[in-house]
Amino acid sequence: MINDKPLDSTDALEALRAALRQFAADRDWSQFHTPKNLATALTVEVAELLEHFQWLREGSSAELGPDRLADVRQELADVLIYLVMLADQLDVDLLQAARYKLERNAEKYPVDKVRGTSRKYTEL
Amino acid sequence: MINDKPLDSTDALEALRAALRQFAADRDWSQFHTPKNLATALTVEVAELLEHFQWLREGSSAELGPDRLADVRQELADVLIYLVMLADQLDVDLLQAARYKLERNAEKYPVDKVRGTSRKYTEL
Amino acid sequence: MINDKPLDSTDALEALRAALRQFAADRDWSQFHTPKNLATALTVEVAELLEHFQWLREGSSAELGPDRLADVRQELADVLIYLVMLADQLDVDLLQAARYKLERNAEKYPVDKVRGTSRKYTEL
Amino acid sequence: MINDKPLDSTDALEALRAALRQFAADRDWSQFHTPKNLATALTVEVAELLEHFQWLREGSSAELGPDRLADVRQELADVLIYLVMLADQLDVDLLQAARYKLERNAEKYPVDKVRGTSRKYTEL
Repeated sequence: MINDKPLDSTDALEALRAALRQFAADRDWSQFHTPKNLATALTVEVAELLEHFQWLREGSSAELGPDRLADVRQELADVLIYLVMLADQLDVDLLQAARYKLERNAEKYPVDKVRGTSRKYTEL
Repeated sequence: MINDKPLDSTDALEALRAALRQFAADRDWSQFHTPKNLATALTVEVAELLEHFQWLREGSSAELGPDRLADVRQELADVLIYLVMLADQLDVDLLQAARYKLERNAEKYPVDKVRGTSRKYTEL
Repeated sequence: MINDKPLDSTDALEALRAALRQFAADRDWSQFHTPKNLATALTVEVAELLEHFQWLREGSSAELGPDRLADVRQELADVLIYLVMLADQLDVDLLQAARYKLERNAEKYPVDKVRGTSRKYTEL
Repeated sequence: MINDKPLDSTDALEALRAALRQFAADRDWSQFHTPKNLATALTVEVAELLEHFQWLREGSSAELGPDRLADVRQELADVLIYLVMLADQLDVDLLQAARYKLERNAEKYPVDKVRGTSRKYTEL
C-alpha cells in the first residue's frame, strides 16, 4: 500500500501559503508584511478587481470580454494571495473559518424562512 | 491498492464552492449574485476586515486581542466566501490563477535584484 | 459699507476643517490621525456607503427608500469628514485640487471625441 | 451698497457640482452615473488613494515625498469629485450632512468622557 497518507484536502492552500512565505523570505520583504499592511494591500487589490465592474451592468464573462476577463483573473489571484498571507500572519485556517461561517449562515437564514424573498439583501 | 484515486489537492476549495452554490440555490439567491454584485460584496467584506486594523499600529494577534481576533477570523471567512463565489461565476480556478501569478511575480522581482531593498514597496 | 469682507467661497469647507480640528484636539485624538490611518478610515466609510448599494440595481433614491437614504446621507457625511481631515493633514486644498483635475479631464476627454461613446467607461 | 448678495458659503462646492453636471452632460455620460456606479467609482478612487499609504508607516508628507504627494493630491481630488457627483444624484447637501453628523458625534463622544482615552478607537 503506497498511498496511505490521509488525504489532506487543504494541501493546495497550504502549498500556496508555504510558497508565499518563501517568496517573502527570499526577498526580505516580511518586514513590510504586518497584518495591518496586508489588510490594506488586500483592500487595494479588491478595488482593482472592482474597477473592472464599475461601469458594467452585471459583469458577466460575456460583458467583460476575453481581455478584461484575463485581467480579472489576475486580480482574483492577487486577492487570494494577500488573503492567504494575512491569514498566515494571524494563524487563521481560512477553510475552517469559512466552513464554520457557512454553518452559522445556514442557521441564520433558514431556507423555509428566506426562500423566495430577498429580505436579507434589501433590508440587510 | 486502495487509494489509487489521484490526489486532488483542490478538493477543499472545490467543496466550499459546491457548498456555496447549494446554499444560494436553496434560498433562490443566485439572482442577486451577478459578478458585479459579488465584487461589490467582496469589497464591503474586505473593508469590514480592514476596519479592525484602522487605528492599530501593526495589527498583530497580540495587539488585536482575542475578541477582535475572533471577529477578524470571521471577516477573513467572509472574504474567502465571496471570493470563491465570484470566481465560480466567472469560471476562474483561483488556485491555478494564484500559482500562475506567483510565478510571474518571481520573474518580475528577482531575488538578487530586490533583496534587501524595499524598492517595490516605496517606489511601487 | 456693511459687507466688505471679501467673499471667500471656500468658507464652508474651511469651517468644517476647523471644526474637525477642534473636535480631535478636544478629545486628544490627533495622535491617531496619521494620514495612513485617516486614509484607512476613509476607505472603511466609503465601503459602508457602498454596502447600501451592493444588491440594488441602480441605487436611485426611490430604490433606496427613505430610511436607507437617511443612512446613505450619514455615510456621505462621514466620507466628507474623513476626506477633509486627511486633506488637512497633508495641507491639500481639496477644491483647488478638484478644479485642477476637472480641467485636466476636460483636455483628456474632449467632447467631440468622446461624446456619444462610452469608450472611457468600457475600455477605461 | 454694493455687495448685497447674501453670502452663500457653499458656493464653492455648488460651483463644483454644477461644473461636474455640465461635464457629464456635454459627454452624454450621465447614463453611466447611477448612484450605484458612482458609489463603486468612489470606492475605486479611495483605494487608489489608500494604495500610496499601504507600505508606509504613517504616510506624512515627508514620508510620502513630493512626487507621491502630488499623486495623492490628485487622488484626493478624484474622491471629492465622485463624492460630489454621488451626493448630487441623491440630492444630498454634503456640508449640511457633515455638520449634522459632527454635532451628533460631539454628543456621542463627550470630551470629559473620552479625552485621554482611545476607547472609541480600540474598542470601537
